[in-house]
Formats: sequence, C-alpha cells, structure tokens
Amino acid sequence: MSRRQTCRPWLLVLWCVAVGQVASAAWAAAGHPRLLLGAGETAALRNEWPKSNLFAAAVARAEARLAPYLGDPPEVPVPRDAGGGGTHERHKANAILLADAGALHQWTGEARYAELARQLLLRYAELYPRLGLHPERSSGTPGRLFWQSLNESVWLVHAILGYDCIHDALDVDERRRIENDLLRPMAQFLSIHSPGMFNSVHNHGTWAAAAVGMTGYVLDDERMVRMALLGTGGDGNGGYLLQLAQLFSPQGYYLEGPYYQRYALMPFVLFAKAIDRNEPARGIFAHRDGVLLKAIHTTIQLSYAGRFFPINDAIREKGLDTMELDHAIAIAHGHTANPALLSLVDERSHLVLSADALRLALAKEAGAEQPFPYASQHYRDGPAGDQGALTVLRSGPGPEHSALVFKATSHGLGHGHFDRLHWMFYDNGAEVVADYGAARFLNVVQKAGGRYLPENLSWAKQTVAHNTLVVNGQSQFQANAEEADASWPTDHFHEARAGAQIVSAVEDRAYPGVELRRTMLLVDWPALERPVVLDVWRARSVQASRFDLPLHFKGQMIESVPVLSAVPAWRELGEGEGYRHLWLVGDAALPAGARWAFTWLQGRRFYTYSVFANVDGRAHLARLGAGDPNFNLRPESALLLRTAAAKELSLVAVLEPHGEYDAAREFTRGSVPRIAAVLRSSAAGKDVITVIGPNEAQLQVALSYQRDPDLQHVVEAEGGRFKWRGYYQVSMTDAISPKEES
Amino acid sequence: MSRRQTCRPWLLVLWCVAVGQVASAAWAAAGHPRLLLGAGETAALRNEWPKSNLFAAAVARAEARLAPYLGDPPEVPVPRDAGGGGTHERHKANAILLADAGALHQWTGEARYAELARQLLLRYAELYPRLGLHPERSSGTPGRLFWQSLNESVWLVHAILGYDCIHDALDVDERRRIENDLLRPMAQFLSIHSPGMFNSVHNHGTWAAAAVGMTGYVLDDERMVRMALLGTGGDGNGGYLLQLAQLFSPQGYYLEGPYYQRYALMPFVLFAKAIDRNEPARGIFAHRDGVLLKAIHTTIQLSYAGRFFPINDAIREKGLDTMELDHAIAIAHGHTANPALLSLVDERSHLVLSADALRLALAKEAGAEQPFPYASQHYRDGPAGDQGALTVLRSGPGPEHSALVFKATSHGLGHGHFDRLHWMFYDNGAEVVADYGAARFLNVVQKAGGRYLPENLSWAKQTVAHNTLVVNGQSQFQANAEEADASWPTDHFHEARAGAQIVSAVEDRAYPGVELRRTMLLVDWPALERPVVLDVWRARSVQASRFDLPLHFKGQMIESVPVLSAVPAWRELGEGEGYRHLWLVGDAALPAGARWAFTWLQGRRFYTYSVFANVDGRAHLARLGAGDPNFNLRPESALLLRTAAAKELSLVAVLEPHGEYDAAREFTRGSVPRIAAVLRSSAAGKDVITVIGPNEAQLQVALSYQRDPDLQHVVEAEGGRFKWRGYYQVSMTDAISPKEES
Repeated sequence: MSRRQTCRPWLLVLWCVAVGQVASAAWAAAGHPRLLLGAGETAALRNEWPKSNLFAAAVARAEARLAPYLGDPPEVPVPRDAGGGGTHERHKANAILLADAGALHQWTGEARYAELARQLLLRYAELYPRLGLHPERSSGTPGRLFWQSLNESVWLVHAILGYDCIHDALDVDERRRIENDLLRPMAQFLSIHSPGMFNSVHNHGTWAAAAVGMTGYVLDDERMVRMALLGTGGDGNGGYLLQLAQLFSPQGYYLEGPYYQRYALMPFVLFAKAIDRNEPARGIFAHRDGVLLKAIHTTIQLSYAGRFFPINDAIREKGLDTMELDHAIAIAHGHTANPALLSLVDERSHLVLSADALRLALAKEAGAEQPFPYASQHYRDGPAGDQGALTVLRSGPGPEHSALVFKATSHGLGHGHFDRLHWMFYDNGAEVVADYGAARFLNVVQKAGGRYLPENLSWAKQTVAHNTLVVNGQSQFQANAEEADASWPTDHFHEARAGAQIVSAVEDRAYPGVELRRTMLLVDWPALERPVVLDVWRARSVQASRFDLPLHFKGQMIESVPVLSAVPAWRELGEGEGYRHLWLVGDAALPAGARWAFTWLQGRRFYTYSVFANVDGRAHLARLGAGDPNFNLRPESALLLRTAAAKELSLVAVLEPHGEYDAAREFTRGSVPRIAAVLRSSAAGKDVITVIGPNEAQLQVALSYQRDPDLQHVVEAEGGRFKWRGYYQVSMTDAISPKEES
Repeated sequence: MSRRQTCRPWLLVLWCVAVGQVASAAWAAAGHPRLLLGAGETAALRNEWPKSNLFAAAVARAEARLAPYLGDPPEVPVPRDAGGGGTHERHKANAILLADAGALHQWTGEARYAELARQLLLRYAELYPRLGLHPERSSGTPGRLFWQSLNESVWLVHAILGYDCIHDALDVDERRRIENDLLRPMAQFLSIHSPGMFNSVHNHGTWAAAAVGMTGYVLDDERMVRMALLGTGGDGNGGYLLQLAQLFSPQGYYLEGPYYQRYALMPFVLFAKAIDRNEPARGIFAHRDGVLLKAIHTTIQLSYAGRFFPINDAIREKGLDTMELDHAIAIAHGHTANPALLSLVDERSHLVLSADALRLALAKEAGAEQPFPYASQHYRDGPAGDQGALTVLRSGPGPEHSALVFKATSHGLGHGHFDRLHWMFYDNGAEVVADYGAARFLNVVQKAGGRYLPENLSWAKQTVAHNTLVVNGQSQFQANAEEADASWPTDHFHEARAGAQIVSAVEDRAYPGVELRRTMLLVDWPALERPVVLDVWRARSVQASRFDLPLHFKGQMIESVPVLSAVPAWRELGEGEGYRHLWLVGDAALPAGARWAFTWLQGRRFYTYSVFANVDGRAHLARLGAGDPNFNLRPESALLLRTAAAKELSLVAVLEPHGEYDAAREFTRGSVPRIAAVLRSSAAGKDVITVIGPNEAQLQVALSYQRDPDLQHVVEAEGGRFKWRGYYQVSMTDAISPKEES
C-alpha cells in the first residue's frame, strides 16, 4: 500500500475546500511587501530593532555582506557549471543577496539596497529569456540557471522575497520587465513546464510550490497560487496541500528523515507564512492539527548536541545551525511564543531579517528563554501514523544525556537506507554508535560534481553499513528501494517509564522467509553509574541463514575479550555490496553462548559492548576502506558478530558506558567494565535476560512480547523461576537470587 | 658536547652563592601556612573572595568534591595496581583531596576540612612505614605508594600543601606522627634513597626536588631545602637550580618540548612560589633573567586553539586547560599582573585555591583582560640557546590564524622523536599537517598499564611518522636516542617581515654522509586569499640515496593530480620501523619535475599540497594500521613522495589553503586550488622558486642561503634573470615577466 493511496480520500476533502477559498479570495495583505514582512511592518518597528543587539548584529552582518556590491553589483554569468562550480555558486549567492538587499531596504529604509536588488533583477530579466536548459543538466529535472530545477526553485524563493521588498521602489516599466521576463517565466518553467517535478510529493515539489505560490501572491496571480496549493491541474493531485498531507506524519515526522526534513521545512514554513499573511482564513498553521508547528518541533527533537540524527542520505555536519531552521524557529516563535525556541538562538546564530526574528531576539534578550525539552519520543511514520516509527529514548534533557535512536520507519523514498531495526547511540555529548550518513561531499566539484558518490549506493545505503542484522550477507530487499517503500516494520511496542524505556519492532519483509524482532531498552540501573542499553534479537528463518550483526562505533579500541587476532594482510569481509568495502582486521572464534566484550574509548568515556548468541560464531573487527578507487570513504571502524547458519537466532547485547578519561587532568577511572556476566533464559518464545553487575547486583529484563497487561508469564531463569505480567518487566536486585514478582 | 657539560662552570658560581644563603637563612615566612598560602593571608581575604564569582565557584566545586568524604574519609589502600588501576588512582585522588582540604580549611575557616586532612594524613602515617617497594614497580625508578617514584613525588607535593594548611590545627603528637612516619621518610625515600632519580636533570628530578624542598620549608628542615636546591650532595650536581639552568633555554623553551614543559612547569612554579615566600632574597623569579616567567609564557605560546603542539612523546588532548597551567598562570599573574593571562581563564577554568588565583579572578572580573599575544617566535633550544630551535610562524594572533611549526631542536632526551626538520601546520582553528603524538592511552590499564605502547617506539618516534625527509627508509640516527642527543640541527636562519616569514636549518648528523637543508616560508600573497607555505629542500648524499617525504594530513582526500591508482590489496610500505605500520593504498608515477597536487578538506577549508622533485619518483597515499597486533594505532592518512636514488635532491612543495566548505549553510566555494604552476631555477647552490597563481600573478622566492646582506646573487629564472642581495628575497608581480630587483 503506497503512501499516496493511503491519503488520497482524506486529501480530496481538504482540496475541495481549498479550491473554493482560492477562487474567491482577495489577498488580505494588499500592499507590498506581503511575504516574510508586511506592508508598513518595518516602518513601525524602526525604533525597536536597534534595541536588540542580536537583531542589530544580524542587520550589520547583512550590510557587511552587501557592502562590496553596492555600486558594483555582482556578476550575472551565463550558466555553465554543475553544483559547486563558479556560476552555480554565483547564482546561489545572488539569490541570497537579493533577499538580503530587499530586507535591508525595508529595515533601514535606504534606497541603495533597493538599487542593488533592482540592478540584479533587471540583469536576470535580461539573461533569463535567453537561456535554454542548463548545459550540465540532470536527466530528470533540469533547470535553466542551474543543473537541476531544485536549485532554480530555491533561487526563486529568495528572489521573490527580495522583489517583494523592493516592489514599491520600482517603476512600472521595471516591474513589467522583471515580472514578465524573469519571475513569470521562471514560475511557469517550474510548474506547467515541469509538471512531473512540480506535482511530486517530495521536497523538490515543495520548493517549487513555495516558489510559485509566493510569486503568485506578490504578482497578484491567483492561478499561480492555486497551482502551488493544488498542483498544475488545480485538482489536488499535486501541490503544497498534498505534500503537507503526505510527507508528514501526524506528529510531524517527515518520511525522508531529519536531514531532508530540515531541508523541506524551509519552503513549507516560508510558504505557510505567506499563506497566513495573505489568506489567514486558511488557518494554515492549524491545518492537520498544527502539523507544521509539530514538524518544526520534531525536527529539533531529532538531533543530539546540535546535529541531526544522520539516518538515510544525510550530510552529517548538518544541524540546528542551518539556515532552514533559522526561518523555521523564527516563524514558529512568531506563532507560539514558545520560550524553549529561544534556547536555540545565540550570538552565533544567523538571525533572519524578519519581524518574527526581531521578536525572537527581543524575547531572548528579555530573558524569556527556557531550555529545549529534549525528551523520549515515539515518532510514528506515515501520513496516518501507521507506517512504522522512529523512536528516541533519552535519559534526560541535558547536554550530556544518553540517547538511543531506533529506526523502524518506512523506507523514505530514494534517499532511504536499507537499515530497518537499525540503532544509534549518543552519550556525553558525542556519537558512540554511529550511522555513516551519506557518501557525498556537498557541492565539491571534484567529488562527482558535489552529488552523491558511487559509494553512497555501494556502501552507505547497504544494510551492513548500519547497526542491524544482515542475513546471508545480503542487504534488506536486496537494496531495491521500490520494494522497500511498499512496507515497513510492524508490531511496534514502546513504553517509557521512569528508569526503564523499551522499544520493539518486527521486520518480516526485508528477507523472504525471515522474521526479525529487535527489542531495545535503556535502563537506569543504580548499580551502574550510567544508563545501560539492552539489545535482544529473535530471528527465525525458514532456511538456515547466516546472520551478521555489525556495530559501527566511534572511538578507539581498548580491549577485546576474547582477544582478537590481528589479520596480517587485510582482506575484504565479503564480495557483496557493502561488504566489499570492509577490511577484516581482527578475528576470534565465539562459541555459542560465549560472550564477546569489546571496550572502546570515545571522548571522555569508555563503552563496553557485550554480545552473545545461541549459535557458534566469530567476532570480527573491521575497517572501512576496501574497494574505494577514489578514496571517498572515511576510515571508520566496526565490530561484526557473524554466526553459523541457523534457523533460530537468539542474540543478546548490552552496551555499558563507564568510567572517565580526562587527558587534560591526567585522570582515568573505571576503564574496566563493571558488568560481569549476561545470561539469557528462554521458554515458549519468551526471554529473561539477567545482567550481573558489580557486587553481584542483578538486572533482570523479562519479555513476553505479548501486549495483554493481565496475561501472566513464567520462565525458569538463572537462579529461579521468574514470573511477570504483560509485555515486559524490568527488575533489579542486590542479592544473588532474583526477586520474584507476580 | 652534552647539556650538562655546557652548563657546569656557570652553575658552580650560582651554587656557591646559593649554599651560602641556605646555610644562614631563617625562613622569611615564620608561621603556617607558608607555601601557596601565607600565614594569615586567607583571614585577611575572607571578605574579598566571596565577591569573585569565579573564585567562589572554585571554592564551591572543591567543597562539592570533598562533601562525600566529610565524616567518611576515603580509603587508604595497600598499594597494588599500576597506573590507572584502583589503588593507583585512589592514592592520586587522595593527594588532591589533601591539598583541597587544606586550602578549604584556610579559605572557609571550617574545622571539618582540617579534620578530613588530619584523618587522611594519619592513615598514611600508619601505612607508609609498612611499605616496601611497590609490587608493580618500574625497574628504574620504583616508588612505594606508586609503581614509579614520579607519582610519589607528585603525591608529596600535594600532601605537603595540605599539611602546611592544617599544621596549626594539629596537636604536637599528630604533627610528630605525620612528619616522622610519613613526610620525612617519604622525602628521604625520594632523595637520599633515590639519588639517581633525584639528581637527574629531568622532570622526574624536578618533581622530587619540589616535593622535598617544599617539605623542608614546612618542616623547618634546612638540609632538605639544601638538597632540593643543590642535589643530594649539596654540591650543585643535582637539584632544582641545576635543573632550572639546564632544562630551559634562555627564552624558556624546555628541552623535552611543550607536552613535558607543561608537566615540568608545575613543580618548577610551585617550588618557586615557596622559595620566594620563604627566601625572597633569592629572587628566584628574576633568576636567569626571569626564565621561569618566560617558561610560562613560552608554554602558552607553544599551543594552537588551546592544545599544545604535540611534538615528541605528547598526549594530543593536552592543552591550556591542564591543572599544571592553572597554577602557573595564577603564580605568573601574581608576579606580573600581565592582563593577557586573564584571557586564558573563563568559567570552565579550574581555578586553584591560592591568593594569586583569587587576585587573577578579581582582575578578570574587573575587566582587565587583554588578548594573549600569540606571535611568531624563534625559540632557541639548549641552556645557552645554541642547541637548535623550534620556530613558530604565525599569520596573526586570532583564533583562525595560520601557524607553521618548524622543529629543529635538540633531541629532547628519552621522550624525543627522530623528527629533525619536521613541520606542522594549523589553520582556521584546526590541525592540518599533523604530528601523531605519543602512542599511549594515559592511565588506561588495559593498554599496557597506561604506559607508552610498543607502537610508540615502532611508529610514533620513527622519522616516517613525521613530516620530514627519510633517507633510505631508515629513521634518523637509526633511532638511537643517545646519538641523537649529542647534536642538533645547525645553520639556523629565521626572519619575520611583514607578509613573509622564513626559517631554515641544516641537519648533517642524522644520516652519515647526508646533508639535509630545509627552508620554509609563510607568505601573505595578495593573489591568494590565505597565506601560502613554501617548502624547499636541498639534500646531498655521498652515496646515491632514496628519499621519502611524508605528509601526515588531517581531513578527507578530495583530489590528486596525477590520479592515484587504488591498490586493491593493501601492502606494507616497507619493512623498517615505522614503515611496517603503513599500508600503501594509492600510487602514481611522478617523473622528475612533474608536480603532484593533492587536495584535501579539513573542517571548513580546502588544502592543496603541490610537490615536485628533480628526480623521478612515485606518489603514494598511505594509511596507518598495518602490523598493529593490539589495534593501538589510529587510522590516520599520509602522503608520501618517494624518489629514485640520487646524490642530489632538490624538492619544492607549496601548501595552499583555499575555499570554504560549509555543510550547515550548504555553501562550497573555491574547492579547486588557484596555484597553476610551481617552477624552480637553480644555479650554484641558489634557488629561485616561482609560483604562478590566478591570472598569471607570480610569487618569486629567491634563496642564496648566505647571510651576508650585501652579497649580490643572480640566477637565470623562469622568464628572465633574477637578482637579489642577502639570504633571501620574496617578490610578487601581477604580470608574466618577473620583476627584476637588485
């Protein structure tokens, strides 16, 4: 069942209402500007803004950026280069310059900024009609100014912001030339001449819709606005409202994951701001129970230490300091005055030049800030929230808390990775168990023109590049995205109690004849200084299968028990996609039931991963870098537990953060893990995991995997009979004998 | 000629004066405390210190650290473990606790802190007499509480600070037990029972001297103080004054490099403070033209972005936030009130609990701070400043400046690396061309007990682990430290003019029959956006030799011209020490005169290294990690240019920082280098290097290597005859033809 089919009936209703509104509406905002800023809004605030140091600094920075171009406007070159090349970057910069110049004209009232934007726009109005498709065009969605139309949409969003702000400073002839030779043709090129892209339910479509819709508002062109909202056919089979309905879950989770969520957010919120100003009756911010504001909040939640969780095709450096969030935070604060948003702003922030941003800055400076409430959350995926979930388990809100991210979402279209039941772990302000992110150097021409590298497909998307089970050395769905898009993990369970949080899900489509269930817990066990992670797998395979469990860790290896033999001449771990990039560097036999304890140091803390399975296997240490002809891959390290072929796999792992390494203070303590043993007892599909800690303290986790809270379960466990009710139970004891609960 | 011989005559004079003073002096400070704090000093400041937020926070942190032990003093275990183990860390922590408790007793006047220190000291007084040598003792310098006596000296330095502070709160019997059973025997053990260590001119000796000398002042024991100052024989053949004379150059450069300089600084300054308080007539801070204060300043200068240059055996994480500098900065500010020292203090700093630190905090809070004047400097090494030099060329003082570090110092004793004419480069707040540092996990028991790892010798110390020429695949001096200690690079030249800085040195002992000269420049060439590095080698070898020039870069490879062929199965680059840890991963032929241009991305900037030689060679890309049985090495990357055998090598390299990569802002520009060509013309031992930049701009550097400023030189260079006077000349042109200057 595809996303689109799920949503269509519900959407049709919305669409009918929307069409009626568009057809009859005169814009509420009559003068100019009417997008990010309102007519007369800056004049009213002219005495206010210099009082804000943050905002005044943002104005000053924008003035400094523009200073070199006053009287000497930048080049408007004939398009030539792909992403990262000279003309590409020049046109990108010019768009931002246009938006800046317009805003500065509004805030300062100075004619020279309008003059700069005027000259630039007129030059573009001269150039644009002469352009065919870009010489470096992409096959699917070519642009004219840029190699792909996406950049052209982004360009128009910025340019229309600038034009809106200087509209009243232009004469009629200038407006006519700019509108008829540049803005309209570009809007047409991005919509009726590119209907496939424009009507797509995808971030490219949203950027195009925002560009065309915002242009429509400024040019008083109702037809453009209607197309933007409802697609080129005006029938709701494309456009902003369909995108809003289908791309976000009810909680505001975006199907491509946080990296593209952040990217998609900018056109969503900019266009929403424009809709709200010009057609407030639409109540766009209340639409779908406030999904846009939820999406902004969710985007922020999907980060740790200021960086987004890099699932799917993600540039790992991206975080809360991106320009897309600058707009989103300002607009969200403008609508909610939520003081937690102020905590995301500081002197290094790039405040945008909107009235919302000014109010944000003034509130920050008035001391209204509250900490952002980072919290555990189970983000259901899909338009109706029934297509898998991303679960974040956090030990607290502070900068050094532990966070476990469990990915059991839908695939996420073309940027999705084959990583169902994958997890990541953050602690002490750093990444500990990691996702490689995308194999891409954004806009670096020497690296495939700045596009995704071949290794994005051969490595980064493959299952073994993630922290989840690989069956028989194959990626999930044999790396077929269309197949992966058609389903999602099921049987989700999630609960967060004080001291113990749990998430569980089942994947039974990724490998024919194989059912995988993973259950993870983050437990605050007083016997250990930091919360501990439990990881419990159950897998059944019709045919006996070999299972690999990789763990991509960040940091430096400290110790392995059993000791790993170094492989003198490194060899590829396998021939399949993903595997052919991994060198096998360390190896040890691991008999059934034997525990592999691997300790590493990341930043100032030690981590020990203990894992064992019910079948014989081998412990591998691997390093990335094989089969990499252009030296594109980072030299990351991974553990990999490989089992013999089996029809039933039961695997238990525990991650223990411990100790402290402070080189500056020459202080090391607790480099040896405190967990002495991990045991598993199973019966009738139920598991009891017993962790033996310091001084024989015990942590027991019982799992029935059955939701009925009244159903009682019994398993004969280490040291006695263990009884509990419901899906799971976590108990802790000081003594050797397990506490019996009923 | 050894260091010791160089200094002895001069030292003897000093020693005679010193003996006279010690013999006749009664301490100027009569009561207690009399080391870091003076008698009655805290009482006088009791209304002052709560006014300083920084100092009050430091007091509060110390109180919080001690709170768990009030009424329940920590264990005083029988010594058992080596570095990083439980008893080791417990005793280390107890010493700090003693110092803290004493200081808190002074500052707060509260008896409970004295009580905690009293109980601890009495327990140690009970334990210590029963101890033989430590079970995990090191062969050379065993301790009793610790595996090595060094830790015992550090322990006593802290314990005597604590005892000094609570002296007046103890009764006579308690003092007797603590002094007779603990402090005196420990001081004796560290001096007359360990004369080899105590009299050594080495940081171990300095810690011991400080411990014994400070104990002597507190216990009114003139003999101890004399030993501390003049060695166990009281004759100046050991002790603090000899160490001060021999370990620092006149500019305050410490022969083991900044990592150990920082470490050695703490006993030097703590003991100096005690000497100054008790025997001000010695004028210890003015001694050797104020070498101690210079040493503190130099230690700070030998850092970038807060981290020390990691030459020799250095833990790379060490920087300005170490406890050793906390003391040094406070004491230096106490003597000089230099407002630049205030810039090194902020809320995260660990202020010590001294009156100097309080005055530092109050000055900081009064807004007296000035930026620290990071500057280019030529640090001559050796007691008389004639044993080589470390040169730092900086493009400015700010946090993003470029800094080139050129190492042509003496070897640096047992912690020295075989890295003459090695360089490092920092830019934009990050390491760009790097030193591996030491192979060691400080105090991590699982990693060789926290000591230096085998790979410290087999990799980190070897020449190929550095950015300097390796001849015939052998390390300098065949990695024999004693031979290396006997000489140092010669013929140093250094000059810093506005826009162009130069350093040059010759090494002709490291390889028999081989003379190496390296000349490096940091040039601010307006045709490029950032300062550019020029690197010019001349080598002569009696026998034809193969030369390898490694470059250990930080960051990710972007492009190589010529293209490097990926080596499908990585193989060791060689069998010798160092080489056997390097995998050859990429390879290309490089004919004589052909330029190898290699671009990488580090942080937010691109770097292109262009190199060519006068003989045929090969371009190699290497990765660290071969022959590493315990997985101790980090997976670093290096370039390596390998030449065919030759008797004369002329090699020129240029490092160009360029462009910007801002993933957060999705902005990339200038990823392609702007230098089009690098040419070299030579005649009669002189070189003219011509760099062709954008728009055919030219940078020409002429080198005669002759100091006479009036001597004129002529070389037929690219495009014409080039004339100049003196050692070197830098000129820049816009046109194609070189400017002729005379």
